[in-house]
Amino acid sequence: MEISLGELVGRLGGELVGDPAVSIKQIATLDKAGEGDLAFLANPRYRAALESSQASAFILSPKAAGLTDRPRILAADPYLYFARAAQWFNPPKRPAIGIHPSAVVASPLPASVSVGPNAVIGENCDIGENCVIGPGCLIGDGVQIGADSWLHAGVKIYAACVIGARAIVHSGAVIGSDGFGFARDGDKHWVKIPQIGRVVIGDDVEIGANTTIDRGALDDTLIGNGVKLDNLIQIAHNVQVGDDTIMAGHSGIAGSSHVGRRVMVGGQAGIAGHLVVGDDIVVSAGTIVTKSLDKPGVYTAMLPQMPHADWVRNFAHLRRLDAMADRLRELEKKLADKKEKS
Amino acid sequence: MEISLGELVGRLGGELVGDPAVSIKQIATLDKAGEGDLAFLANPRYRAALESSQASAFILSPKAAGLTDRPRILAADPYLYFARAAQWFNPPKRPAIGIHPSAVVASPLPASVSVGPNAVIGENCDIGENCVIGPGCLIGDGVQIGADSWLHAGVKIYAACVIGARAIVHSGAVIGSDGFGFARDGDKHWVKIPQIGRVVIGDDVEIGANTTIDRGALDDTLIGNGVKLDNLIQIAHNVQVGDDTIMAGHSGIAGSSHVGRRVMVGGQAGIAGHLVVGDDIVVSAGTIVTKSLDKPGVYTAMLPQMPHADWVRNFAHLRRLDAMADRLRELEKKLADKKEKS
Amino acid sequence: MEISLGELVGRLGGELVGDPAVSIKQIATLDKAGEGDLAFLANPRYRAALESSQASAFILSPKAAGLTDRPRILAADPYLYFARAAQWFNPPKRPAIGIHPSAVVASPLPASVSVGPNAVIGENCDIGENCVIGPGCLIGDGVQIGADSWLHAGVKIYAACVIGARAIVHSGAVIGSDGFGFARDGDKHWVKIPQIGRVVIGDDVEIGANTTIDRGALDDTLIGNGVKLDNLIQIAHNVQVGDDTIMAGHSGIAGSSHVGRRVMVGGQAGIAGHLVVGDDIVVSAGTIVTKSLDKPGVYTAMLPQMPHADWVRNFAHLRRLDAMADRLRELEKKLADKKEKS
Repeated sequence: MEISLGELVGRLGGELVGDPAVSIKQIATLDKAGEGDLAFLANPRYRAALESSQASAFILSPKAAGLTDRPRILAADPYLYFARAAQWFNPPKRPAIGIHPSAVVASPLPASVSVGPNAVIGENCDIGENCVIGPGCLIGDGVQIGADSWLHAGVKIYAACVIGARAIVHSGAVIGSDGFGFARDGDKHWVKIPQIGRVVIGDDVEIGANTTIDRGALDDTLIGNGVKLDNLIQIAHNVQVGDDTIMAGHSGIAGSSHVGRRVMVGGQAGIAGHLVVGDDIVVSAGTIVTKSLDKPGVYTAMLPQMPHADWVRNFAHLRRLDAMADRLRELEKKLADKKEKS
Repeated sequence: MEISLGELVGRLGGELVGDPAVSIKQIATLDKAGEGDLAFLANPRYRAALESSQASAFILSPKAAGLTDRPRILAADPYLYFARAAQWFNPPKRPAIGIHPSAVVASPLPASVSVGPNAVIGENCDIGENCVIGPGCLIGDGVQIGADSWLHAGVKIYAACVIGARAIVHSGAVIGSDGFGFARDGDKHWVKIPQIGRVVIGDDVEIGANTTIDRGALDDTLIGNGVKLDNLIQIAHNVQVGDDTIMAGHSGIAGSSHVGRRVMVGGQAGIAGHLVVGDDIVVSAGTIVTKSLDKPGVYTAMLPQMPHADWVRNFAHLRRLDAMADRLRELEKKLADKKEKS
Repeated sequence: MEISLGELVGRLGGELVGDPAVSIKQIATLDKAGEGDLAFLANPRYRAALESSQASAFILSPKAAGLTDRPRILAADPYLYFARAAQWFNPPKRPAIGIHPSAVVASPLPASVSVGPNAVIGENCDIGENCVIGPGCLIGDGVQIGADSWLHAGVKIYAACVIGARAIVHSGAVIGSDGFGFARDGDKHWVKIPQIGRVVIGDDVEIGANTTIDRGALDDTLIGNGVKLDNLIQIAHNVQVGDDTIMAGHSGIAGSSHVGRRVMVGGQAGIAGHLVVGDDIVVSAGTIVTKSLDKPGVYTAMLPQMPHADWVRNFAHLRRLDAMADRLRELEKKLADKKEKS
C-alpha cells in the first residue's frame, strides 16, 4: 500500500496543503511516525508532539492548519479522517477462500466463503457471500449470517440465531446461550424455563472477545444495526439494544431491558432488568442504572478512589448519614426556636 | 407437540375452568400469543394485556380467576406452572446419539451418549448415560460427568473435575482452571502455588456461558446441588456454594469463601475472600460483601445513578464527610454550651 | 514423589528441627493433613489447628518454632516455603511430546513440543522448546511463544502476538483481539479504526481463564515480566502493565493506561483510560481509579454492604449531600452572627 497525498485526498476528501506528490505508506502516531507515515492531531494538547514528529504529512483540523508548514490534510474531524485513512492502509487480511478439510460443515455454503480448520457448521445454516468463519468456530443448526461477516477463531453461535451483514465477532464470543430464567418451586428448587427465543443481530455490528448474548425466553433478544460491544459484556435474554449503541468492557444489561439508539455505556457499568433507557443516554463507567431514563444526558454514580485511610475515615459516616441528617434538622430547629424566643 | 387443556391439567395439575378440549400447541407471552397458545399472567400489572390477548387459554392464580371468562388453568403459582408447561412443550432438541468421527475420545463411553464434532475427551473419564458433549468441548483426563448432563459447544473441563447428573453447561464455560494462588518472594516476584484440588459440582446445576470455576489449591472447590450460575461469573478456588444458590451475570466469589444455601447474588455483585455467607441471604446487584453475614435478608451497597452534574455536586462532599461530621459535632457543642450559659 | 525432611531442606533450604529421616509425600492443610504430609502455619490465628493436625511435619516461622515439638522446618516466610515445597511435590503433568494427528499445524515446531488434539497453529509461528499447546488451542499466523510455555485447552491467540517464556495461559483466554477503537461519524455511526498493533507479553506471565487482552491500535499492548492475571480480566488496547503486577478476577484496565510494577488490583476493580498508575500501588476490590496515581499506597472507593433497609435510609441522603452541606454552612454562619451580636 503506497499512495500520494494527492490521490489519498482524491479518495477520502479533505483539503490538501503542501506537495500532492508526497508518498504515504502507513498511518502512525505523532511520536512513532517516520518517513512515509501520515500522523494526525485530533487534540491540541499534543501540539508539541506535532512539532517534533518525523511524519511525512499530518491530518489536522482547519483551525490547526497553521501549527505546521509541512504537508497536511485539513479535515473537519481529523480523528474520523484518520479512521478512514487507517482503513484504507490496513484492509483486513482475509484468509484464503474455501473450506478447510478439517472443518465439519453440514450446510451448503457460497463458494466465496472461508471456513477455517476445525470449524463446525450445523445443518440448515444460511451463510452469506464472502463470510469468514474462523478456525474452531462452532455454529449451531439453522444459523443465519449476512454477507461479508467475519467470525474470528472460536466463536460459538447457538442454533437459530441471526447475525446481519458485515459483522465482526471476536474470539470466544457466545451468541444464543440460554437466558437465565427460572421459576422457584416454593422456597426450594429452581425450575428451568426453556429459552425458545433467538438472538437477532442487525448489520454492521462488532462483538468483543468472550462477550455473551443470551437468547430470549419466549421472544427474541434484539441487537440493532451498528451496535459495538467491547469484550466480556453480558447481554441478558429479551434485551433490546438500539442502533449505534456502544458498550465498553465488562458492562452488562439485565433481562428484558430496552436500550435506545446511540446510547454509550461505560466500562463495568450495568443496566438493571425491565428498564427502558432512551436514545442518546450516556452511562458513566462503573455506574449501575436502576431506574428507567428518558432524558438524554450523562448519568453517573461512581465513587472515585481515595487513599485508603481517607476512605475509612469518610465512609464510616455513610452508615450514619441518616442520623447526621436528623442531627442537622434538630440543630436547625433549636436555632429557629431561639430566634423566636429572643 | 399438541395437547388438550384437559390432558395438560392431567399431567401438570392445576384447576381447569373452561372447555377441556381446547387444543394447545405452545406457550407464549400475552402480547404475542395467538390461536393454540397458552399464556400466563403472573403479575396483576399486566391485566390489560390479558384482556387483549389472542391466546387460546391462560394460566392464572385462583385470585385472578375472574379476570377473564376464557379457558384458564388456575395454579397457586402461575409462573411456576408456566415453567413446567413450557418444559413440556419444548423438550431440549437432543443431537443424534453416537460419537462424531471427528471427535477425539480416549475413554470408553456409554452407547447412549452424543459427542459432537471436534470434541476432545481425555483418558480415564467417566461420562454418564445420555450425556450430550457438544461440538468442540475439551474434556481433560479423569473427568466424571453424571447421567443426562448436557455440555453445549466449546465447554472446557480440566482434568479430574466432577460434575453431577442433569447438569447444563453453556458454551465457553471453564471448569477447573488453576486457582489464583501465589506466594510473594519478598517484595519481588510471585511464586506459583500448584493448584491440586478439584472442582466438584453437584446434581441439577446450570452454568452460564463463559463462566469460570477454579479448582482448589489443596482441597476442592465445591458447588452444591441445584445451583444456577449465569454468564461470566467467577468462582475462585476453594469456594463452597450451597444447594439452590443462584448468581446473576458478572458476579463473583473470591477465594475460600463459603456461601450458604438458597443465597441469591445480583448481577455485578461480589463476595470477598475468606467469608462465610449464611443461608437465604440476598446480595443486591453491584454490591460487594466484605464481611461475613449470617442473618437472612437483603444486603445492599450500590449507588443509584443520577444526572452527572448532580453527582459531581453531591459526591464532592463524600471526600469531606469526616470534616462535615466534625463541624456538626462542633455546632452541637456550641449550642449546648449556650444553653448552659443562658 | 517421596522425600525425607533432610533431603527436602537440602533442596529448598530452611532450618530443620527434628528427625531428618521423616518421610514426606505431599503438602496439605493443617486440617486435612495425615501421615506423610507436610503442613504449614503462616498465620498464628491457626495455632489451634496446628495442635490437632495429623501432619508428619510442619513449616513454621522461627518465631513459631516453639508451638510444637514435632518435626518442623523453620523458614522466614512459611507461605513462600510452602509454595516451593508444593511445586516440588506437584510438578505439572505434562502431556506426551508430539503433535496429535488431529491438530492442524502450518509452522515447523521443535521436536520437544506437545500439541493437543484439534489444536490449530497458523503459518510463520515461532514456538519455543518444550511448549505445551493444549487441545483446541487456536493460534494465528506469525505468533511467537517462548520456551516452556503452557497453553491450556482452548486458548486463542490472534496473529502476530508475542508471548514470553514460561507462560501459563488458561482455557478460553483471548490474546490479541481488536482494541475497541471507533471514530464517530458526526452523531451517527461508528467507524472502525483498524487495530494494527500487537500484544507483547514478557516472561513468567500467567493469564487466567477467559481473560481478554486486546491488541494495540497503532502501537502494541505491553504486559511485563512476571505479571499474574486472574480470570475474566479485560486489558484494553495500548495498555502497559509493569513487571510483577497482579490483578484479581473481573478487574480491567481501559485503553492506553500505563500501570507500574508490583501493582496489585483487587477483584472487580477498574482503571479508567489514559491514566498513569505508578509502581507499588494497591487498588482495593471494587474500586474504580479515575485519576492518575503516583504515590505508593492503598486506594479505595467501595461501599461496604449493609442491610437493605439501612441502605435505603442512609443512601437517600447521598442525593442531597450538597444541600446538607449548605445547611451546615448556614447554621455555622448563624451561630457566628449571634456570637458577634452578643
